[in-house]
Formats: sequence, structure tokens, C-alpha cells
Amino acid sequence: MQRPPIKPGDLPQRAIETLTLLRERRPRIHCITNNVAQNFTANVLLAAGCAPSMTISPEEIGVFVKSADGLLVNLGTFDRERREAVDTAVTVASESGVSWVLDPVLIDRSPERAKYARTLVNAVPKAIRLNAAEFTTLSGRGAESEAAADFARGYGAVVALSGATDFVSDGSRSLSIANGHPMMAKITAMGCAASALVAACIAVEPDALVGTAAGLLMLGVAGDIAARDAKGPGSFAVAIVDALHTIDGTAIVRHARVN
Amino acid sequence: MQRPPIKPGDLPQRAIETLTLLRERRPRIHCITNNVAQNFTANVLLAAGCAPSMTISPEEIGVFVKSADGLLVNLGTFDRERREAVDTAVTVASESGVSWVLDPVLIDRSPERAKYARTLVNAVPKAIRLNAAEFTTLSGRGAESEAAADFARGYGAVVALSGATDFVSDGSRSLSIANGHPMMAKITAMGCAASALVAACIAVEPDALVGTAAGLLMLGVAGDIAARDAKGPGSFAVAIVDALHTIDGTAIVRHARVN
Amino acid sequence: MQRPPIKPGDLPQRAIETLTLLRERRPRIHCITNNVAQNFTANVLLAAGCAPSMTISPEEIGVFVKSADGLLVNLGTFDRERREAVDTAVTVASESGVSWVLDPVLIDRSPERAKYARTLVNAVPKAIRLNAAEFTTLSGRGAESEAAADFARGYGAVVALSGATDFVSDGSRSLSIANGHPMMAKITAMGCAASALVAACIAVEPDALVGTAAGLLMLGVAGDIAARDAKGPGSFAVAIVDALHTIDGTAIVRHARVN
Repeated sequence: MQRPPIKPGDLPQRAIETLTLLRERRPRIHCITNNVAQNFTANVLLAAGCAPSMTISPEEIGVFVKSADGLLVNLGTFDRERREAVDTAVTVASESGVSWVLDPVLIDRSPERAKYARTLVNAVPKAIRLNAAEFTTLSGRGAESEAAADFARGYGAVVALSGATDFVSDGSRSLSIANGHPMMAKITAMGCAASALVAACIAVEPDALVGTAAGLLMLGVAGDIAARDAKGPGSFAVAIVDALHTIDGTAIVRHARVN
Repeated sequence: MQRPPIKPGDLPQRAIETLTLLRERRPRIHCITNNVAQNFTANVLLAAGCAPSMTISPEEIGVFVKSADGLLVNLGTFDRERREAVDTAVTVASESGVSWVLDPVLIDRSPERAKYARTLVNAVPKAIRLNAAEFTTLSGRGAESEAAADFARGYGAVVALSGATDFVSDGSRSLSIANGHPMMAKITAMGCAASALVAACIAVEPDALVGTAAGLLMLGVAGDIAARDAKGPGSFAVAIVDALHTIDGTAIVRHARVN
Repeated sequence: MQRPPIKPGDLPQRAIETLTLLRERRPRIHCITNNVAQNFTANVLLAAGCAPSMTISPEEIGVFVKSADGLLVNLGTFDRERREAVDTAVTVASESGVSWVLDPVLIDRSPERAKYARTLVNAVPKAIRLNAAEFTTLSGRGAESEAAADFARGYGAVVALSGATDFVSDGSRSLSIANGHPMMAKITAMGCAASALVAACIAVEPDALVGTAAGLLMLGVAGDIAARDAKGPGSFAVAIVDALHTIDGTAIVRHARVN
């Protein structure tokens, strides 16, 4: 894997290029995600220029993933049929060279789900996006930069640790993104949508670290813009979709806070 | 079937009458639709005056359909239990004289789903609403007016072919509706909601061609109105629900672009 | 059970205290609810300060309920796996002392669902929130105050009968809440979200009558505020989430209409 160095100051330009590719190529992103998140996730992907699909039927998930450009595996509302779908999807993605992203939602609340997440990590997702409690459950370590970088190196996957500041590492290179707004935590499925956007960015940007960081930067900047006029989480959720649709290079450069 | 001629210039008035009936009678529309679409579809139906229900439990779908005024069968997120539900629902609808609408979502992506859609077409829905790729998959022909009219004639169902201009035909009569806004394609479930609205209109308007076209005209005009102040797809989705709720005869007449 | 008297004039202050507790303690509310309602319900709970979870997987629902502070059992989209989840959840909730709320959605449309709701009532929820048609199906009596109070007394559960005026009774004490706006009936899942909010309030307020009434008052006042600027049900749904997030004691006192 080619891993050219990337400086924090380069990310805004790379994110702009990634966003342009999303809008030009309209990648098909197949999402196995929880019911709560499906609608918002689809609208976030559409706003960023992508073509989402969401089926989890075991009989047809294979053909959907095969013809997709990227795949999201989100473990929220973890029902039986969904697990069957995940197994097929990950197998087909690996065979077909479709990159995929893992979002191990709430594994800190459910040992069964955590166990399943660990088997999925071994199937080598391109990126894993998760919060501190989920990271600790998955790795057995505190949610710190070094632990995240170690985990990324060990499993050959980009780790994106969400929080007030997002930390992204592929084991050898790391970036921190301080964009976004606390209101993002008050909207259900915001993290799920972030993971879907990361899957989309990785589908068009071959450097998974850059793609992951670009997706989180876009969404963070959209959050910064949405927060300006929002009166609460309801209008914020509407405004962040609007912002993702209208965001341009100038906005990304102006708002980016990358380290 | 009585098929009096309809001129394009008559549609706005017929759509106004249909909308008035929706608001007066509050028809119960049962929707078997995908998880992604359920919430938005229910809100669109409520905004137009209808009473939506959404269960897919095989044990109870029969009683729901039997007491409904219209049925939508949407094939998105095509899981097992949902197919059982569809089979029961279509059987009960036929026995009970409940008109139903087929929306064969994304059959161009899944041969299994396409095969299933073909069996459903033979169960004679009152209308089929679909986009160009789905029509081509279903009919084996290009998405042109003549092919759509032939298909409608052959299967005895109204065909509504969605696109920048919607084309509606029952085989002997056709209408084109040029309302709506490109932003409608950036909101997930907009097509699914259109199909649900068509099911509602057919429930109160016995002429299925008129009902189908009336539903698409209402939604298109609501889209025209929503586009005026929307800042992106997030606020557009909110505004189109508002517009469907507040739309009146004057707005329909003023905005209608029917041929 | 301690049941100190409560005067209508006391409710606003009690609701303010309950809302403060929600924001301070951020109770975990597990919702078994229908697909249509999941997203809106989660956002309403988040706006009120709670931490929602929504899985229905039989394998993990036990651990989620066990570590939750409250549970909602909503019978909409009544599929098989969901019923398994309900049985496990109610058993675990009883064993672990987690209070739970029943919302018997649309049991008037489905005898099977009504039968199942009756078995759940016998498992002693802390509160049952339902509309007039659902109450009549459940109790066999007209939806009047006396019938609701009798039912509450008979089953040892608070009954919250929704309508233009909400009536809440635990059999010995009753309150009526006249807040809210007709637009609330035009948004899908508003009742489901109300039940979830009641589950949250009961999780922090040990007096279930007060908790139930406090939840309905908060949502009703948020509805009054949302109605001021809403242009239709789309913007109303956004505004009521904003209002729940920003609402304070002054607003509750000013708007409360309790009898």
C-alpha cells in the first residue's frame, strides 16, 4: 500500500478534490445500517452527491454489493437477518474489491455485538469509525491517539476515533480534525451518517487515510455552517443536509481546523 | 372499465377534486414499503389528508389491508417477512376490492427482485410507478412513451414513468406532467412517497389514470412551491411536506404544466 | 406505592423538575418501537436530554434493557422478531426493576395485536399511553375519564388517554392537560414519541402519575411553541424538536394548561 506523507494543511484541498469526485462520479454506496439511521444516512449521501442503497435481504445483498462502489457495515439494531446480510456483504466486498467501512455502534452496551465486531475487524475493513467507549470495548485500551494508531497498524485499517476532536490514523500517519459542533451529538444517526460518508470518500479516494479524514472534515464543516442559524437539533439536522449539498472549496478552506 | 377521454387542461381541476376528497374522506392507505421510506411516506400521506398504516407482520397484514382504502406495494429493502406480507396483502386486496399500486424500486439492481416484480405485475395492480431503469428492466424495452403505453395496455395497469417529465398512460389515454424540481431526486424516498400518494388518489378517484396523474401533479406542484425558499435538500424535504398540507386549487392551477 | 395528592397547579413545577433531571442524568431509554417511529422518537429523546437505544435483536435486548433506565414497548409494525424482543424485554425489565411504558398502537385495527396488548397489560407497565379507539379496544369501554380511571385502578398502571385534551390517571388521582396543537396529529410517530418521553420521565420521577403528566405537558408545550412559526407539518416536526431542546421553566409555566 502506497502511503505518501500528508500534512494537516493539505487535507482541505484533498477534501475538496474528494467532494468533487463524489459529485462527478456519484458512487453507489451500499449501507447495511440500522433502521433508525437509514433515512438520515441516505439523505446525507444524496446531499454529498452519492447514490445510496440499503437492502439487507440475504438473497440480494450480494448483487447490490457487487455493483456498489463502497460498503458500510453498521451494527446498530443488530437483528438476525442483518447479520446474515453482513456476512454475505463482507465476503462479496472482499472478492469484488469493494472497500468497506465498519461502524461498531454501541458495542460497549452488548457483549454479543462486541464479539461479532471483533470477527469483522479481522475481515479487514478499510476504515473503522467509532467513539471512545466503542474503541475501548474493541481494543481493550483507552481511547488515546497512540492506542488508536497501534490498533490501526495492527489490523491494517484506518481508525477514526470520533469525539470533540476526531482522530484519524492508519498506523503510520495521523490527522486530527477539530471541526463540527456539539449539536451533532444531539441528532440520532449522525455518527452512522459520518461512517457512510467515509465509505463514500474511500470509494473515490484510494488513500484510505485521506478519504476517511476528508469525509469527517466535510461533515464537520457542514456542521459548523449548520450551527450558525439552527435553533435546536431539529433545524440543525435539516441545515447540515443543506450544507453538505451546497458546501464548496471556499467553505472547506475557511472552516477547516486540521492538525 | 369506463375510460372517458381526458384533456391535459382538465387535469388541474380533477387534481383539485381529488385532493378535496383526500382531505374529506381521509382514506386509509396501507403501505408495504422499505424502512428508509416509511417515515417520509407516512408524513407525506398525512400532509395530504390520509391515514397511513405500515405494518408488514404476516399475521396481521390481512386485516389491515381489508380495512384499508388503498394499498402500496414497494419492493425496497426486500426482506423475507416483507415478501410474505406482500403475497398476503395482494391476495386480500384482490378479494376485498382494495386498489393497489406497485413501486418496483431498484429492480434494475437485483435480478431476484425483478423476477418477483414480474409476478406482481401479473396480479394486476391498478398502477405501476417507476423510473426509466426500472421500466426497462420490467418491460425489456426503452423508457419511451410508446413502450409505456403498450405495457399499460398489455397488463391492464396504469403506468407512471417518472423523470424530469412524468408520463402516465393506461394504454389508451396518456398525460405528461412537467412539474417538480430536480431537488426531488436528492431526497430519499421521494419516489416511494409519490407512489403512496398515487395509491391514495386512486382510492378516492375511480378513474385510475386520472388518480395517478392527479397524485403526481399534486406532488410536483408541492415540489415547485418547496423549491422557492429551500436552501438544499434538507429544507426542501421539510418544505414539500408543508406545501402538500397547504396547497390549494389556486396553486395547482397556477403551477400545473400538463400535456 | 406512595401517592401524595397533586393539584393541577403543581404540575408545571414538577414538569420543570423532571426536565431538569432528564438533562442532568441523561437516562438511557430503550425503545422497542416501530420502524416508522424510530428516528423521530430517538431525536425527541435526545432533544429532551436522554440517551436512546433501539435494538430489537432477541440475543441482545436483554443486556440493553438491563442497563437501561426506562423501557418503551410500542406495538406498531408488529413483526415476529419484535414480539420475541418484547417478551424478553418485559421479563428483564420486571426482574431488574426497570420501569416500562406500553403504547398499544392501532390495536383497534388488528385483533391479534389487541390480544397481545392485553397480555402485556397484565405484565404491569408503569403507564399505558393510547388514544380513544385504542382504549376502547383494550378496555371494552368508551374513552371517558371514569373508564380510564377504573382501568388504571384495576391494572395498577397509569393510563394516559391522548386527545385534544390528554387525561392522565392512576385510579386515585387524575390530571388533564390541554396543551399541544392539532398539527401534532399530522406528524407520524408523534404519539410514539410522546410515549417514549413518558418512559423517560418515569425513569427519573418515581411518582408515575407525575412523570407521565410531566412528559405530556413538556411535549404539549413544545407543540404550542412549535406551532407559532410552523408553515405546515414538515416545519412543525422540526420546530417541536427544537422546542424540546430549548424549552425552560418560564415557557412551561407560561403555556401550561392543566386541570
